[in-house]
Amino acid sequence: MNVFERMESEVRSYSRAWPVVFDRAQGSWLHDEDGRRYLDFFAGAGALNYGHNPPVLKRALMDYLDRDGVAHSLDMFTVARRHFLTALQETVLTPRALDYRVVFPGPGGANAVEAALKLARRVTGRTTVIGFTNSFHGMTLGALAVSGNAAKRAAAGVPLGHTVSMPYDGYVDAGNPGGFPELLDRMIGDSGSGLDKPAAVIVETVQGEGGVRAATDEWLRALAAVCRRHSVLLIVDDVQMGCGRTGPFFSFEDAGIVPDMVCLSKSIGGYGLPLALTLIRPDLDVWQPGEHNGTFRGVGPAFVTGAAALHAYWSGNDLEKAVRRAGERLALALGELADSHQDAALTVRGRGLAAGLGFRAAEGATAGDIASRVSAEAFRRGLLVETSGADGSVVKLLPPLTVTDAELDQGVDILDASITAALHT
Amino acid sequence: MNVFERMESEVRSYSRAWPVVFDRAQGSWLHDEDGRRYLDFFAGAGALNYGHNPPVLKRALMDYLDRDGVAHSLDMFTVARRHFLTALQETVLTPRALDYRVVFPGPGGANAVEAALKLARRVTGRTTVIGFTNSFHGMTLGALAVSGNAAKRAAAGVPLGHTVSMPYDGYVDAGNPGGFPELLDRMIGDSGSGLDKPAAVIVETVQGEGGVRAATDEWLRALAAVCRRHSVLLIVDDVQMGCGRTGPFFSFEDAGIVPDMVCLSKSIGGYGLPLALTLIRPDLDVWQPGEHNGTFRGVGPAFVTGAAALHAYWSGNDLEKAVRRAGERLALALGELADSHQDAALTVRGRGLAAGLGFRAAEGATAGDIASRVSAEAFRRGLLVETSGADGSVVKLLPPLTVTDAELDQGVDILDASITAALHT
Amino acid sequence: MNVFERMESEVRSYSRAWPVVFDRAQGSWLHDEDGRRYLDFFAGAGALNYGHNPPVLKRALMDYLDRDGVAHSLDMFTVARRHFLTALQETVLTPRALDYRVVFPGPGGANAVEAALKLARRVTGRTTVIGFTNSFHGMTLGALAVSGNAAKRAAAGVPLGHTVSMPYDGYVDAGNPGGFPELLDRMIGDSGSGLDKPAAVIVETVQGEGGVRAATDEWLRALAAVCRRHSVLLIVDDVQMGCGRTGPFFSFEDAGIVPDMVCLSKSIGGYGLPLALTLIRPDLDVWQPGEHNGTFRGVGPAFVTGAAALHAYWSGNDLEKAVRRAGERLALALGELADSHQDAALTVRGRGLAAGLGFRAAEGATAGDIASRVSAEAFRRGLLVETSGADGSVVKLLPPLTVTDAELDQGVDILDASITAALHT
Amino acid sequence: MNVFERMESEVRSYSRAWPVVFDRAQGSWLHDEDGRRYLDFFAGAGALNYGHNPPVLKRALMDYLDRDGVAHSLDMFTVARRHFLTALQETVLTPRALDYRVVFPGPGGANAVEAALKLARRVTGRTTVIGFTNSFHGMTLGALAVSGNAAKRAAAGVPLGHTVSMPYDGYVDAGNPGGFPELLDRMIGDSGSGLDKPAAVIVETVQGEGGVRAATDEWLRALAAVCRRHSVLLIVDDVQMGCGRTGPFFSFEDAGIVPDMVCLSKSIGGYGLPLALTLIRPDLDVWQPGEHNGTFRGVGPAFVTGAAALHAYWSGNDLEKAVRRAGERLALALGELADSHQDAALTVRGRGLAAGLGFRAAEGATAGDIASRVSAEAFRRGLLVETSGADGSVVKLLPPLTVTDAELDQGVDILDASITAALHT
Repeated sequence: MNVFERMESEVRSYSRAWPVVFDRAQGSWLHDEDGRRYLDFFAGAGALNYGHNPPVLKRALMDYLDRDGVAHSLDMFTVARRHFLTALQETVLTPRALDYRVVFPGPGGANAVEAALKLARRVTGRTTVIGFTNSFHGMTLGALAVSGNAAKRAAAGVPLGHTVSMPYDGYVDAGNPGGFPELLDRMIGDSGSGLDKPAAVIVETVQGEGGVRAATDEWLRALAAVCRRHSVLLIVDDVQMGCGRTGPFFSFEDAGIVPDMVCLSKSIGGYGLPLALTLIRPDLDVWQPGEHNGTFRGVGPAFVTGAAALHAYWSGNDLEKAVRRAGERLALALGELADSHQDAALTVRGRGLAAGLGFRAAEGATAGDIASRVSAEAFRRGLLVETSGADGSVVKLLPPLTVTDAELDQGVDILDASITAALHT
Repeated sequence: MNVFERMESEVRSYSRAWPVVFDRAQGSWLHDEDGRRYLDFFAGAGALNYGHNPPVLKRALMDYLDRDGVAHSLDMFTVARRHFLTALQETVLTPRALDYRVVFPGPGGANAVEAALKLARRVTGRTTVIGFTNSFHGMTLGALAVSGNAAKRAAAGVPLGHTVSMPYDGYVDAGNPGGFPELLDRMIGDSGSGLDKPAAVIVETVQGEGGVRAATDEWLRALAAVCRRHSVLLIVDDVQMGCGRTGPFFSFEDAGIVPDMVCLSKSIGGYGLPLALTLIRPDLDVWQPGEHNGTFRGVGPAFVTGAAALHAYWSGNDLEKAVRRAGERLALALGELADSHQDAALTVRGRGLAAGLGFRAAEGATAGDIASRVSAEAFRRGLLVETSGADGSVVKLLPPLTVTDAELDQGVDILDASITAALHT
Repeated sequence: MNVFERMESEVRSYSRAWPVVFDRAQGSWLHDEDGRRYLDFFAGAGALNYGHNPPVLKRALMDYLDRDGVAHSLDMFTVARRHFLTALQETVLTPRALDYRVVFPGPGGANAVEAALKLARRVTGRTTVIGFTNSFHGMTLGALAVSGNAAKRAAAGVPLGHTVSMPYDGYVDAGNPGGFPELLDRMIGDSGSGLDKPAAVIVETVQGEGGVRAATDEWLRALAAVCRRHSVLLIVDDVQMGCGRTGPFFSFEDAGIVPDMVCLSKSIGGYGLPLALTLIRPDLDVWQPGEHNGTFRGVGPAFVTGAAALHAYWSGNDLEKAVRRAGERLALALGELADSHQDAALTVRGRGLAAGLGFRAAEGATAGDIASRVSAEAFRRGLLVETSGADGSVVKLLPPLTVTDAELDQGVDILDASITAALHT
Repeated sequence: MNVFERMESEVRSYSRAWPVVFDRAQGSWLHDEDGRRYLDFFAGAGALNYGHNPPVLKRALMDYLDRDGVAHSLDMFTVARRHFLTALQETVLTPRALDYRVVFPGPGGANAVEAALKLARRVTGRTTVIGFTNSFHGMTLGALAVSGNAAKRAAAGVPLGHTVSMPYDGYVDAGNPGGFPELLDRMIGDSGSGLDKPAAVIVETVQGEGGVRAATDEWLRALAAVCRRHSVLLIVDDVQMGCGRTGPFFSFEDAGIVPDMVCLSKSIGGYGLPLALTLIRPDLDVWQPGEHNGTFRGVGPAFVTGAAALHAYWSGNDLEKAVRRAGERLALALGELADSHQDAALTVRGRGLAAGLGFRAAEGATAGDIASRVSAEAFRRGLLVETSGADGSVVKLLPPLTVTDAELDQGVDILDASITAALHT
C-alpha cells in the first residue's frame, strides 16, 4: 500500500474505508490481492449495475479489441458508435416513445450535466438554474454549482454562481410533499420575487449521494408542471438512478414525466468504462458544430459494452421486473432490520435497488460516526457498503441489479450483524 | 449514416469533415467500413501518440480482461492502479527528478484542469487565474473560463469569471518575446493595477487547439520566474503536448522549468481510453479526503494500457530521440512545402511532432476557408488532418509518435497535392 | 416642459404621472409653477418625513450658509459634523440604549446598503447575502443584487450574484408567518443544503417599494433569532421606514430586535438633502482607514438640517405618539374606504404612516392599471400618491409625519372620490 | 474630537492627516474652530472647483431657500431642474456642439458610473467592461469593479467580476504611448483572445486618485478609435477632471474625442452639494421609465448652485483661459521645485490645475512615507494637500480653479519648505 500513500493525493477517500488492494472481480464479488472476497453492495457507485465483468459484455469487448476496432474516435462516425446509437434507439427510446437527440458530452456524468446546463442557458437566454438541497451533480465548476454538499462546494475556491438551491421533496415537512413546487411556481411567476427567471431546473428523482432520498411521483409531477407552465427546462440527472437502478430504465418513468433533457452515465457503458450521454428534446438542439467538444466522446470499447448491455438487459422487461422484485425484498428485509434494532431508530429509504439506512446520533456519537462504524463492521465481514449524505449518516446499498436473492439475503445478514456490532461496542 | 444524422446532436463536428464510418485501426492507419484506409495525422487529437491499437498494449489489456481484472474502482486501491503509479514513478518522475503527488481528477483532460484550478484557488485563497490568448483547456465551466475561443465561451450561456486572458508569447510582437511576462510581473506587483493577485497561471507550452503556437523556452522561463517571484502557482496543461508530443515526456522539459502542477490526459492512457492525472507539488496537497471526487477515477483497462505504454515507450529515451528526429524531418519538409507554394504565404509552426501550416486569406476566401479546403482535399487523398485556431486557418499535423519516415513523407506528399488542389480550384 | 423631454433620458418616471412643473413647497403642500397646490402623500418617497421646508430647519440652514459654514468636507472633522453626531447620540442612540458606530458611506441610501454588505462580507469572510421577495435596497450593483424587482434587476446587464432571495413574511401563506425563518434556519444549518452559509440577511421591516408589506414582530424576532443562532449578521434597511415613518425612530423597535447594522438615509437629512448613515455594531468596525470612501460624505448643510431635525422632532416622544395616532386614524379611514368600495376588494396594508391600498384586477384591467388610474384621478383632484409593488397594484400613502388630521382626512376623501372615478369610468 | 473618535467608524481617513475641526470656509481658505486658516489645495477632492462658498452661488441658494423652493423632488419636474438643464445646454453642450441626453443617476459620482455601466451593458447585450490600471471610479460594487486599488477592491468581500483591467497610457513603457490600444484592438478583434467582446471602455483622461497620471491626447484618440472600430462604447469618467479642472469644461476636449457617455459629479453642483449626471448619446437612451431610479435625483439646492455656477463660470471662456494659465504657472513652479530638490528625484505630473509631485523611496522610507511626511509638513504650515496613488507616493495638488497667483505661489512656497523639512529630518 506504500505506493498509494506515497504517490496519491490525500483527496482519495474510498480507499480509507476499505484499505485493501482489489485485484479481480466477477458478478457481485470483488477479490483482493490476498484472495479475500467481498460482496459488493456499492457497485461502482452505480456504474456497475450489471455486476463486475459480465461475461456477455466481456466477450463483445474482447472480440472488438481482437479485431482492432477503433478504440478512440472523438465524434467521428464509427461502426461501434452506430451500433450503440441503434441499440439505444431500439431498446430504450422507441419502446418508451421517447424522442431525444443524443449529445456525447465527454466521458463522465459531470460532462453530461455541464452540457445540459450550457444548452439550457443558451436556448433560453437565461442564466439561473435551480438545484435542490442535498443534490449531487458532479465536481466540475458548472455541475458543482448545482450540488448541495458544503465541503465540496467550498473546495471550488470561488463562489459558485448562477444557481439557486431549493428544498427537495420532504425537506421541510414530510407531510407537505407539494409544498415546494408551489413556492417555486410563485417565485418564478412573480416579477418582484428576486428570483431571476430560471433557464432550467435540474433534479435527481432519488438523491443517491445526498442520502438516498426519493422524491414522490406527485412531487416530480408537480415540479414538471411548474417547469412547463413557465417554460423552464426540466433536466433529470439520471446518472446514478438511471439504467434500471430504481426498476425502469429511466428513474422518472413511474412518475409519468418527460424531462426536456436527461443526463446518463455510470452504467450506460455497461462494463464500468467511461461513457456519458445528454439526451435532449430535438427542438432544443441549437448547438453549432463544435460549440461543445471533448477528447473522450468516442470510446469504442464503451460503445461496444454499452450496446451489449442494452441488448442483453433491456431488450425486454425482465430486468425491470427483477429489480422491482428485488427492491421489494430488500425493502422488506431492511424494514425487519429496523424493527429488530429499535434502539437504533433506523429509517429505511430509497426505491428499487437504491436503498438507504439512516442512523441517528446516540451516546456521544454523531449519526455519521455510527453509520461509519456500521460500514467498517460490514467491511470486516466481507460486505462493501458506503455511507452517504452530507453528514454521512446514511448507509447506502447499491447492489448490482443482477444480484441473486441469496446474495441479497447474505448482504442483509451481514448488515444486521454489523449494526449490532457497531451499536454495542 | 442516417442513424447519426437522426440521433446525434448538431454539435458533432469531425464527422462533418470526414463523412465516412470508421471501423478498424492499426498504427498510423484508420480503415472505414468500405475498406478504404486513411493515414492518420490527427491521432485522436493527441490521444493516440502511440498509434492505433499498439499490439503490446492490446495484449496487456486483453490479458487483464481475460483474467477478470477490476474494470472500475473509483479511488479504491487496485493492483492495476498500483502498477500504473509505479510505472509513472519509475519511467517518468524518478528519471526526471520530479517530485509530484498524483490526483486522479476524473476521466478527461478537463477534469485534470478543473482539479488544478480548484486546488490552486484553495491553496492560495485567491480566485483569479491567468490564462492566455488562444488557449484551450476544456469545455467544463471552470476550464472553459481559461480558454480563448469566443464561440465556445459564448456557448456557456453565462459570463465566465474569475479569470483574465493575457497575451501569449508572440501575440503582439514576435520580436519581443519577453514582453508579456514583464507586463504580468508589473501588474501583479502593483497594488493599483486592478488585476486581483492571481492564484495561478495556466499555460500550454504549445497551443495545439489555438493554432499550433509554440512558446519559446525563454518566454516560459520568464513566465515561471514571474510566478515564483509573486508566489503565483504555475500550471502547465500538458494534456495534448505531454506524453512525448514535442519530444521529451513533458513538453516543458526543454525550457528547464518545473511547474507547480501538471495536467495530463489524452495519451497517458496509451490506448485512447479515458484517463487523466493532475500532478501536484507535494506541499500543495491540502485536499481533504473526498473534497474532489468522481466516478471514473479508477478505470482498470486504462491503468493497464497506460502502464504498458510507459514501460514500452518511456523506459529509455528512444522515443524522445525518434520524435525529435521525426519532428525535424517534418519541419524541414513543411519548410520546403512553404517554399514551393510561395503564393500561399504559408507559415510553419510547432515543435516536435506537433506541427502547423498557417494559411492566409486570398481571393475572396478567408484563411479558414483555404485551410478547410486543404483538409478536405487531403481527406479525399486519404490523409486525416484537422484545422485549428479560432479562425480555423491552421492545418494541424499530429501524426502518431510512432510514425515511420515513409508515412511521414507520404503525408507531406498528400499535403503538397492538397494545397495545390485547394489553391488552384 | 420641452426642456425636460428634449434633454432628459427616458428613464425618468414620476414626471410621467405628474406632468406639471413644481416650484415651491411648504409643509404637506407642493405648488406648481401655475399656482396650483397639491397635498403631498408621497413626501419625497419618505425623504420628507417632516414635510417640505420646515421653518426651524430652514432657519438653521440659512444661518449656516450665511456664516460661510463648511459646505463640503469629505470625512474631515467639522463643527457641523460633530453637531450632527452629538444630536444622533443624544436624541436617538442613548435614549434607546443602542451602541452603534457611524459610517458615512456616501450621500444616498444605496451607499448605506453597499457599505453594510461590504462590511458584512469582510467581517464574516463569506459572500452570500440573503434578501427577500419584493425587497428594494437600491440601484447600484451590490444593492440591486438584493432587490426583488425583475425589471430593475434586468437593467443591470449582468447576472446579479452572491445573493439569494427568500420568501418574506406572508409570501406563501399568510397563516404561517413563522414558516420561512424555519426554512432558512434549516438550510443554513444543513451542510448539504446547497445554500452557502450567508454573511448577512438584509431586510426591511415594512417593504415600501415592494407594495407596503409589513412583517410581523414575531417574524422579525424569528428571523433575528435564526441570524444570531448561526452568527449571520442582521442588517435592517431602515432607509424608508426609519426616522419615525412607522412610529418609533427605528422601525424595528416594536419588534424588540437589535440589528447588527442599520441603514439610514432619506429623512435623516431632515430637509431632503442627501445624507446616509450605516450604523454598525462597534465590534464589527474592522474597516481600515479609507477602505471605503466617497466624495459626498460630509455635506455641511445636511448635517445642519439633520441635527436640527433630530433636536426638533426627537428630543422627546411627541412625534412618535403623533405618528402612531395618525397611523391609526389613517388605517381606520382606509378600512372604511375598503368597506365602502366592496366591489374593489381593497386590501389595507402597512404600519404607522406607511400605508398601502392594494387593488385587484377587474374587467379587463390589471390591478396595476386600476391602481394607476386611482393615482391619476387623485392627481387631478390635487393629491400626490404613487403606486408601488412589482406590478404597481398598490397605492402607497406616505404623508409627512407632521400631517394634520384635517389634511389626512382631506387626502382620504380625495382617495375615496378617486377610487370611485377610477372604477366606474 | 472625542465625539468623532467615539462615534465614527475607523474607515475615516482625511481626518487622520488633518486632525483639526474645520468650521468656516471662503474661497481658497478653510478655517478651523480655533481660528487658524488653511490654504486649500485639496478643494473637496475636486468638488470645490470654484472655491468655498462662492458668493454668487451662495446668494442664489439663499434666495431659493428663502422663497421655499422645492428642496427634494426625485425625478419630478421642477423649476430649478429646468433652470439647471437649460444652463447646461446653453453654457456647455451647445457651445461645444455636443448632443447628449441627461440621466440623473443619483447623488454622487459612483451613481453616474453605475448608470453608465448598466446602460452600456444593456444597450450592447455584452457584460465585460474594460477599465485601466490605477483607475478610480467609485466604491459601489459596479464602480469598484473597474477601479484599480487593491485594498479598496478587497474590501468588497466578493470577487469583482465582468471587468478587465488594461494598462493605462505609459503603464509599461512611457516611450510607447500607442502600445496598449493596439493590444486592446487585437484582443477585441481576435475570436481566440479569451477577452469577451466588451460592452464599454471606461477611462479617466487624467487619473486623479491613481496618482495624477495624464493620458496623452494621442493615446486617448487611439483608444477612441479602437472603441469605434469595434462598436464598443467609450465612457469618460469626468467626475474629477471635468468642470474645468484641466482647463476646458470637459477634460477630453483637447484630445478632440467625443465619448459615448460622460460621467459628471463633484463640481457640477457648484457649491459642494451632491449632484451627478450621466450624459449619454441620444440613440443609447433605451432605458424604460424607472429602470434606474433613486431618491436623491432632484436636489433643488444643487440644481440652483449648479446652474448658478454654469452661468457664472462657463458663459464665456475666461475660466478656461485662467486655468490653462494657472496650470502653466503651477507646472513651471513645480518644475523649479524638482530642480531645486534634485536629491528627492521628484516627478511632476498632471494637466491644468490637476498636478502631482511624485516621490521616490529613500533611506529606509517608502515613497509613500516621504509623500506623507511632505503632506504633514504642509499641513503644519497651513497648506492642505493630499497624497494619491495606490502606494500614496504622489502629492496631489487640486487648488480651486479660482485660486489667485499669490495663493498659488504661497502654496508652492509652503510645499518647498515642506519638502525640505520632510527630506532632512
